[in-house]
Amino acid sequence: MGVPTPKQFCPILERPLISYTLQALERVCWIKDIVVAVTGENMEVMKSIIQKYQHKRISLVEAGVTRHRSIFSGLKALAEDQLNSKLSKPEVVIIHDAVRPFVEEDVLLKVVTAAKEHGAAGAIRPLVSTVISPSADGCLDHSLERARHRASEMPQAFLFDVIYEAYQQCTDYDLEFGTECLQLALKYCRTKAKLVEGSPDLWKVTYKRDLYAAESIIKEIISQEICVVMDSKEDNKHVGHLLEEVLKSELNHVKVTSEALCHAGRHLQQIILDQCYNFVCVNVMTSDFQETQKLLSVLEESNLSILYPVVVVSVHFLDFKLVLPSQKTENLMQIKEFSKKVKERNILLYGLLISYPQDEQKLQESLRQGAIIIASLVKERNSGLIGQLLIA
Amino acid sequence: MGVPTPKQFCPILERPLISYTLQALERVCWIKDIVVAVTGENMEVMKSIIQKYQHKRISLVEAGVTRHRSIFSGLKALAEDQLNSKLSKPEVVIIHDAVRPFVEEDVLLKVVTAAKEHGAAGAIRPLVSTVISPSADGCLDHSLERARHRASEMPQAFLFDVIYEAYQQCTDYDLEFGTECLQLALKYCRTKAKLVEGSPDLWKVTYKRDLYAAESIIKEIISQEICVVMDSKEDNKHVGHLLEEVLKSELNHVKVTSEALCHAGRHLQQIILDQCYNFVCVNVMTSDFQETQKLLSVLEESNLSILYPVVVVSVHFLDFKLVLPSQKTENLMQIKEFSKKVKERNILLYGLLISYPQDEQKLQESLRQGAIIIASLVKERNSGLIGQLLIA
Repeated sequence: MGVPTPKQFCPILERPLISYTLQALERVCWIKDIVVAVTGENMEVMKSIIQKYQHKRISLVEAGVTRHRSIFSGLKALAEDQLNSKLSKPEVVIIHDAVRPFVEEDVLLKVVTAAKEHGAAGAIRPLVSTVISPSADGCLDHSLERARHRASEMPQAFLFDVIYEAYQQCTDYDLEFGTECLQLALKYCRTKAKLVEGSPDLWKVTYKRDLYAAESIIKEIISQEICVVMDSKEDNKHVGHLLEEVLKSELNHVKVTSEALCHAGRHLQQIILDQCYNFVCVNVMTSDFQETQKLLSVLEESNLSILYPVVVVSVHFLDFKLVLPSQKTENLMQIKEFSKKVKERNILLYGLLISYPQDEQKLQESLRQGAIIIASLVKERNSGLIGQLLIA
Repeated sequence: MGVPTPKQFCPILERPLISYTLQALERVCWIKDIVVAVTGENMEVMKSIIQKYQHKRISLVEAGVTRHRSIFSGLKALAEDQLNSKLSKPEVVIIHDAVRPFVEEDVLLKVVTAAKEHGAAGAIRPLVSTVISPSADGCLDHSLERARHRASEMPQAFLFDVIYEAYQQCTDYDLEFGTECLQLALKYCRTKAKLVEGSPDLWKVTYKRDLYAAESIIKEIISQEICVVMDSKEDNKHVGHLLEEVLKSELNHVKVTSEALCHAGRHLQQIILDQCYNFVCVNVMTSDFQETQKLLSVLEESNLSILYPVVVVSVHFLDFKLVLPSQKTENLMQIKEFSKKVKERNILLYGLLISYPQDEQKLQESLRQGAIIIASLVKERNSGLIGQLLIA
């Protein structure tokens, strides 16, 4: 990867890659324990990550010098029923890589089900490039027929007794130079692993470009819903509803909902629980931030921003003819201060001014401009622009 | 990839992927002709791309229904010395994929040199995943030792007579189901291809995530230099120089240069020729856009923005106590209009206000804020925020 940090600790939106992978496994309620093999030097880093991002069901074991030795020590931790250990021997064990953060429940279920039937199972993908075998002199010896081969990916699943037996039987050469767990199960337990077609998302973050790709995918995932918050949801002529409509028509592929702050943010709590990471707070004819401040405190009380940066756009419908520069500047200073404060809580706050009232056509154009600006802020999550007052 | 557009035509920063690949090959002066195999239905699209991005040395041939048939028709076009053809049979031919845009001259030179000596050569990469062979029942038959195999990538190079002979000899089965040109050279001309270690950048854009990665890599490449433009470069106490210093200290990995507009942009022309895609235009104590307009017209005259979007940040050092809101709003309207106009020329224009004069410490903080904002704008190239006046 060409960076000093081990890739599983490389930050994506300021959070280490491995935390995304743990999150993907934690989501799955039928996964009882998650054992992470960590080298001694990284043990403290790992502990702090688990604490900071509140990961659950995690046990740490000392990693070995090779992949197979690390897996083996993980298996040992699950096998040994010590009194002081909260781990107990499972029927089926899943083996996964820290650098494959996008593993979905369905593929986990498929490999586990297949493992119960066949003793072992692993996800596979078609080959992207033809595989060749070089001769000693660095020339082509032969090329493999692409259609007859597959790339072996993760996750893999095994009956615990099968894979543990395999690791106990296998040679030091296997532990040093082997790369394929399915091969060990075949070689030492005569267990023919079932191969399960995986999705492209199973790919392994290997190069710097993979970090870029992962960041874009994560940004896409958390940008799929925007909640428009306004003081009174019932008032149908509320300009907030006009903005909501324009957002809906301008941003396809984005779910736009609206919510009122008034009933003590009760409904809002539900939206937060449903993990909406983008909020547009509508303030009408006021140049202060009361509504926005209410929303921010609700968000700060929730733990929503622990895993992902939350975008809040404070929209102000103001009559530009009436607003005095002094006020404007005060507001500006205010929102800059707010934005710095909430940034510490991983909330990205931006301001957006829309002239109001305007004639129908001009207003529609301003709302469209506003929607484009909101879409950009949500898509990029650009922390360099927090506290700015943008004008539609 | 899960998108309707063929991947070689998928846009990156609004330009089709294949245009980047053509650009990478055009850069290499010793490549005489570039033959692109295009299906009939895409022929017009391809022609318009070549015209819009001013690609040179390109000939189009009708693609076949398989990869090998397309390559064969490309080779035929080079072999036949028709009077009406501007193509002539080369000594060495390079075969490359439209979806590998980051190919560098050094690897092209390596494969060509090796091809001259061995008759054939191709770039290879280590395997990322273990390759396995499934049995008929969808279970693991055996896994290949990763260390003994390589992924065959592009580019590949051949003595023209060798590969042309191979394609003339090879069977319909090869043309239908084959994937490896090196294999054809081996099978039909007993030519053992030399294998050349390639860089990770050679990877093939295959999935949506690869488009994300490519976009991030390209953004990184064009964000490596920022030119600060000011009216007089000689004046050492010029606040533009202070901004330049802060940019240098805040943005590591970015080359920050400065230039004056005054000598008819003579030096500026050189910077444009050196392909700097980011400009910060300093306007001191003025709320109009004279300097910026000069810069914009120089940029518009040049063809700099044909291939990549160019970022221009119009920085205004203003005494906030003196500026009237009316002026401010006028400016705002001005820059919005400018930004819409130059966007058509692929120039992204943003405004940045910095309060001046201020006491030393406050000014330094404003400049630091300004540098962070400039860095964000340059990094993201967010067209949704063009025409905004940001405040440091």
